[in-house]
Amino acid sequence: MVRLPKYLHASEDKLWLTEDERDNLKISYRIKSILFQETTPLQHVMVLDSVDFGPMLVLDGVVQTTSMDGHIYNEMIAHVPLTLHPHPRKVLIIGGGDCGAAKEVAKYDTVERIDLVEIDEAVVRASKLYMPEVSGKLSDPRVAYHYTDGVAFAKKVKGEYDVIIVDSSDPVGPAQQLFEPGFYKSLHTALNEGGLMVCQSQSPIFHQDVMLQTYQRIGEVFPYRNVYTAVVPTYPGGLWSFTIGSKQPLTEPERIRFSHKARYANEEVLRQCFALPAFIRELLEK
Amino acid sequence: MVRLPKYLHASEDKLWLTEDERDNLKISYRIKSILFQETTPLQHVMVLDSVDFGPMLVLDGVVQTTSMDGHIYNEMIAHVPLTLHPHPRKVLIIGGGDCGAAKEVAKYDTVERIDLVEIDEAVVRASKLYMPEVSGKLSDPRVAYHYTDGVAFAKKVKGEYDVIIVDSSDPVGPAQQLFEPGFYKSLHTALNEGGLMVCQSQSPIFHQDVMLQTYQRIGEVFPYRNVYTAVVPTYPGGLWSFTIGSKQPLTEPERIRFSHKARYANEEVLRQCFALPAFIRELLEK
Repeated sequence: MVRLPKYLHASEDKLWLTEDERDNLKISYRIKSILFQETTPLQHVMVLDSVDFGPMLVLDGVVQTTSMDGHIYNEMIAHVPLTLHPHPRKVLIIGGGDCGAAKEVAKYDTVERIDLVEIDEAVVRASKLYMPEVSGKLSDPRVAYHYTDGVAFAKKVKGEYDVIIVDSSDPVGPAQQLFEPGFYKSLHTALNEGGLMVCQSQSPIFHQDVMLQTYQRIGEVFPYRNVYTAVVPTYPGGLWSFTIGSKQPLTEPERIRFSHKARYANEEVLRQCFALPAFIRELLEK
Repeated sequence: MVRLPKYLHASEDKLWLTEDERDNLKISYRIKSILFQETTPLQHVMVLDSVDFGPMLVLDGVVQTTSMDGHIYNEMIAHVPLTLHPHPRKVLIIGGGDCGAAKEVAKYDTVERIDLVEIDEAVVRASKLYMPEVSGKLSDPRVAYHYTDGVAFAKKVKGEYDVIIVDSSDPVGPAQQLFEPGFYKSLHTALNEGGLMVCQSQSPIFHQDVMLQTYQRIGEVFPYRNVYTAVVPTYPGGLWSFTIGSKQPLTEPERIRFSHKARYANEEVLRQCFALPAFIRELLEK
């Protein structure tokens, strides 16, 4: 008898992954096969081939990104800051081990260097091998990989980056420090004078406290800030928020230009993602 | 021993509704209590009080709308056509038994009459009693209820309406005919010369065929058409599409005016919901 990896279970002769991090909502994905499985010193890493979403990256039993919709998140966390910055040259990505954000950043010819700081090497390896739709099997010579703690990495840098992208997982466990005020201060220091940062700031529906706290904390460190949203079908609530902190006034949305090839992002979407639904606007303006 | 209604099951001392209409993705909602249950000649109707989404309307085991997010769908299916029309007086709603779309339409002082054609009276009754967040316990004297088949109702009308809203369930079973070419022709006839219609046209991610077919069929009947999207957290994929067919050229999005109180919709959102992600734009322009 083959022993199933933890987090998976069989039912009606089918293999399932059930996410039950939330006590009151369970989502079960039917799985075709296990493409990758490794217990690293940090976490349990899997790539599971699912029927509905294709290969999915799963950390400690929680779906992080899928081949079907991972590009939406990655395009929106990368192209918004990259088009807001007039001439992005040096980019730091903290987290982002699925390589999807780096793949999008690499579309910009102005970019000379991309530092990708992912704490777990296995995530990068698994994504490159088994999630080509997301990672694009990234092999750009401008990307430097740093398998280390993003907080410590950011602390050592001064005035270096044009854009910093914080592509973190949820604010529990190791990722929690990526939502702390001290971290945003490090990012401010790590950016050069024209620099700006973006981070994912969770669901405006299910995690309003995190979104609001992120907005406030970034406002304490950066003189300019803004929030935008995108749809991420496999994240709870579908709607996802991103928060920007900037040292310079932000480009007006209608002046954003975008001509790269992408699957979700286009010039219209990049301009209009700043149109916030009434309840989010109210929440932020309280 | 109390017998559970079908579609519900107990596990770990908790009560759950599991949607398994899709073979490869199951969503389980933890339920606090059963607020309403009735087997009508047409379907099995429940209102279940869920932990995460509050009271939910469930037809034949499938979640239709929830107290937490129902307003998003209802605001977007109502306010887009109502703000596109320069002077909406007579409005027909086909489906929409949860009363949420009618509640939004009733915000317009120009509107003199709202014909709500819902095939199942129990849905209206259950929503008014147990889904006040969605239905607003609608009791506007301008609303006339017609508990009858929407297709037959529309066929009998000529040149009557300014706006028709088709708030249907998924295109299976009785709702299937609300996606047929003949039905759009009836709507065209039922509208007056300045009239326009809107229908929900399913998920741009999971039901691309339905969305595309709706766009094409509406294009065969109406000289002007457009597509917009909104986020509906409890629908599969989160992102939802709506298609408009109009006898007159549509108001430019930047000329849309909106000053009603709403929770999701505001002037910015109503203008910018027409910014379609690249993959949808490509699909429609094929």
